[in-house]
Amino acid sequence: MPLAPLSYESHRLVILDQTRLPQEAAQIELRDLAAVVEAICALRVRGAPLIGTAAAFGVCVALRGCGSLAEARARAPAALGALRASRPTAVNLFWALERMERALAGLREPGWFAALEGEALAIQRETEAQDAALIEHGLALLVPGARAITHCNTGPLATGALGTALGVLIAGHRRLGGLHVYADETRPRWQGALLTTWELANHGVPHTLIADGAAAALMRRGGIHSVWVGADRIAANGDTANKIGTYGLALAARAHGIPCYVAAPTTTVDLSLPDGAGIPIEEREAGEVAAPRGMAVAPPGTAVWNPAFDVTPAALISAIVTERGVHRPSAPGGPYDLRRELGRAPG
Amino acid sequence: MPLAPLSYESHRLVILDQTRLPQEAAQIELRDLAAVVEAICALRVRGAPLIGTAAAFGVCVALRGCGSLAEARARAPAALGALRASRPTAVNLFWALERMERALAGLREPGWFAALEGEALAIQRETEAQDAALIEHGLALLVPGARAITHCNTGPLATGALGTALGVLIAGHRRLGGLHVYADETRPRWQGALLTTWELANHGVPHTLIADGAAAALMRRGGIHSVWVGADRIAANGDTANKIGTYGLALAARAHGIPCYVAAPTTTVDLSLPDGAGIPIEEREAGEVAAPRGMAVAPPGTAVWNPAFDVTPAALISAIVTERGVHRPSAPGGPYDLRRELGRAPG
Repeated sequence: MPLAPLSYESHRLVILDQTRLPQEAAQIELRDLAAVVEAICALRVRGAPLIGTAAAFGVCVALRGCGSLAEARARAPAALGALRASRPTAVNLFWALERMERALAGLREPGWFAALEGEALAIQRETEAQDAALIEHGLALLVPGARAITHCNTGPLATGALGTALGVLIAGHRRLGGLHVYADETRPRWQGALLTTWELANHGVPHTLIADGAAAALMRRGGIHSVWVGADRIAANGDTANKIGTYGLALAARAHGIPCYVAAPTTTVDLSLPDGAGIPIEEREAGEVAAPRGMAVAPPGTAVWNPAFDVTPAALISAIVTERGVHRPSAPGGPYDLRRELGRAPG
Repeated sequence: MPLAPLSYESHRLVILDQTRLPQEAAQIELRDLAAVVEAICALRVRGAPLIGTAAAFGVCVALRGCGSLAEARARAPAALGALRASRPTAVNLFWALERMERALAGLREPGWFAALEGEALAIQRETEAQDAALIEHGLALLVPGARAITHCNTGPLATGALGTALGVLIAGHRRLGGLHVYADETRPRWQGALLTTWELANHGVPHTLIADGAAAALMRRGGIHSVWVGADRIAANGDTANKIGTYGLALAARAHGIPCYVAAPTTTVDLSLPDGAGIPIEEREAGEVAAPRGMAVAPPGTAVWNPAFDVTPAALISAIVTERGVHRPSAPGGPYDLRRELGRAPG
């Protein structure tokens, strides 16, 4: 079984460096704020929920040297700013940092640092409970023997717990049986090839790797039950920002009458955004496309457009699965009303 | 300017090894039948029209050692069979070899070998005239300042002459001005990154490289005028087999109301096939996806589905441009009637 993608013990934050998978399962300690920011920027930790957890512990790492709560509060804004800037599309990052900021405001001497760590640990434990609940809801949308396509990586490596979209498929294999998962390689960073196939193999789920461009042909060949993707940010109407390539996959699914399911925790839902137009899209460096993993595939100096995410309009999404349930559009092909469904805290 | 992708002089067949571009413009002589077959299999020569020309000269290379016409005719079937098996999807290959076979049947002693070479040279010269005519027709579908997306490589490197889809865009840049071409990287073999950007740079056409998965997001951003692709085989109803990823690109174009144009010589049209269901799809080795250019991106032993081509249904193709003209479906979104339009020889 894979090592935990993130652990925090004895005030030390240790991550599995996902950029070295599948060749090597290397754990590294993130000793200071700069290391945490670098790890998020360089995708050593990745996946929206895991980024949130990493950032929460990152606040602890950044402030653990402070001699007093007053000093911690003075240093907090810079630390929070640096962490927020590390991955501007990941709403879980903002959510987790907001919680840490609120916790910080309510701390008292003595024991302020243990309480701050407690808040980060609570975020981690809530993610675990969230994944488990999400997976139960998602299983209702699968059938025994389903052949499913997934994009990017949304398994345990992405959340630090059971996973979201891929977590549903892994659980479906165990509980329903007969599943076969097609994993998009997910250019430019190959999360599907590097991480998803590795997770599927580790969990014994039969699977096949395809180039992103082969997904539409696979659907046309027939027999695909559903498409499962995660989300980096979901607007109130259901528009979903996810790894680049998701939108084209959703368009192809729609053309073939195949349902496309988004599975993500409610922390990924940004109710402040009415629709996807307001989601900032991170554009990454040319080298990821032109010279992937250092291997030049285009002439030097070639201009590249390399958005990390695209926005899939709600109309293409058959259902959004969160830990709170299966959310459907108000009418088929219409917008979601996530403000109504998720606007209040549960229980 | 790039070296010629194929030349035949003094009975010697020399090709530009396209697998070594863009790092190196290496010319290699193909000295015997095995070398020609290997060059086609390994994509050292590629692009449907250029494969046809290479195979035609391949017949000359295979038979040049024969002491008599009788000996050549005895050895021809094995040579033709090996060449036909080298790339089963490329209809131009079959077309060129059929011409060579017919020529062989009509040869007489003496001078049979020069006449056989003459037939291959005629195929090459006809490709040049075809490209020029196709480009004139295609230019009518472009506008000054057009931003176009293309997939794979369909330039001079693909035909050995002016190119087809990319030839139209290169000519459009010269004649209309202001064009900007977005080149899909075209996984798994990166023909778009390796070859198309190289050709666009060589011809001074402003261009941007994108991951295949980014094309739909680019269309959604707006301002894309048209999609231009080539073809490996076109059925009588317009269904078009082309590089894997074309079908998804065409689906995305349709969803955005962007015309998708197929540009290919009539030799690519296979009137014996009523529709695309009969087009054989070559499945290539797992390594192209799992360990591209020798660099492992998936765990060892990962199963891969790696079709070289997909079939885009005629309904998604706005027009098919050949050297004979611009062909349109009988009704918008309906099938083409290429048997009626192309069933007789021109003039």
